[in-house]
Amino acid sequence: MASNAACIFCKIIKGEIPSFKLFESDKVFAFLDIQPLSKGHALVVPKFHGEKLADIPDDQLSEILPIVKRVVKATDAVDYNILQNNGRIAHQEVDHVHFHIIPKPNKEEGLSVSWPAQKAEIDTLKKLAEELKAKM
Amino acid sequence: MASNAACIFCKIIKGEIPSFKLFESDKVFAFLDIQPLSKGHALVVPKFHGEKLADIPDDQLSEILPIVKRVVKATDAVDYNILQNNGRIAHQEVDHVHFHIIPKPNKEEGLSVSWPAQKAEIDTLKKLAEELKAKM
Repeated sequence: MASNAACIFCKIIKGEIPSFKLFESDKVFAFLDIQPLSKGHALVVPKFHGEKLADIPDDQLSEILPIVKRVVKATDAVDYNILQNNGRIAHQEVDHVHFHIIPKPNKEEGLSVSWPAQKAEIDTLKKLAEELKAKM
Repeated sequence: MASNAACIFCKIIKGEIPSFKLFESDKVFAFLDIQPLSKGHALVVPKFHGEKLADIPDDQLSEILPIVKRVVKATDAVDYNILQNNGRIAHQEVDHVHFHIIPKPNKEEGLSVSWPAQKAEIDTLKKLAEELKAKM
């Protein structure tokens, strides 16, 4: 299991730093965010250390969302956001992949996003889809 | 496979509405968002119709993130956000679970979030963690 001695989440997983742990399986660790956006804001992380989603092996990735679901159900949240940020410019602050589970109890609490949609030209999208399809 | 005749994403999955499809497996469908926040903005959805993450069976959930990773790699995005919204108040607009893959090429394009972190009392978090743990 890849681990990084300098990573705060690897230390939490190993129990070297205390956390408000919710759940642990062979491959996944869930704990409360100590700077919550709302009550029940939790993090679900692969135990495998990787900075970004694309760095995590598939067998680790496949175990994450079922655990996210279990945490969501435990919180009793009706509305909620699942967010995973990759890169400082994309608001990532700890360089170990983590999924935020953020209950949205009302307009004020939880995650707020702005959605600056761009104009999409059909021809441009079509060409892009062909390019991406060829690379998958 | 649960499907909903009135759901626009179910129609896209069945090919009744055209889309810029990127990939399809038994359980997962990936296509471009036609109102992109940035170039390469794509959606990955379970074929199983469910409004929110908690409605999707585990065997469907486990297939999603490996496909998300494949789309991310195809876009060549370095920084990116993965976002899945549940509920109108949480910015969900189509009531079929969908994961946004949003490349973040620069500060202006892509997803912008505000992060109104709350004050967290250690005792409150500890009590909450115990409550949630008991429900998982």
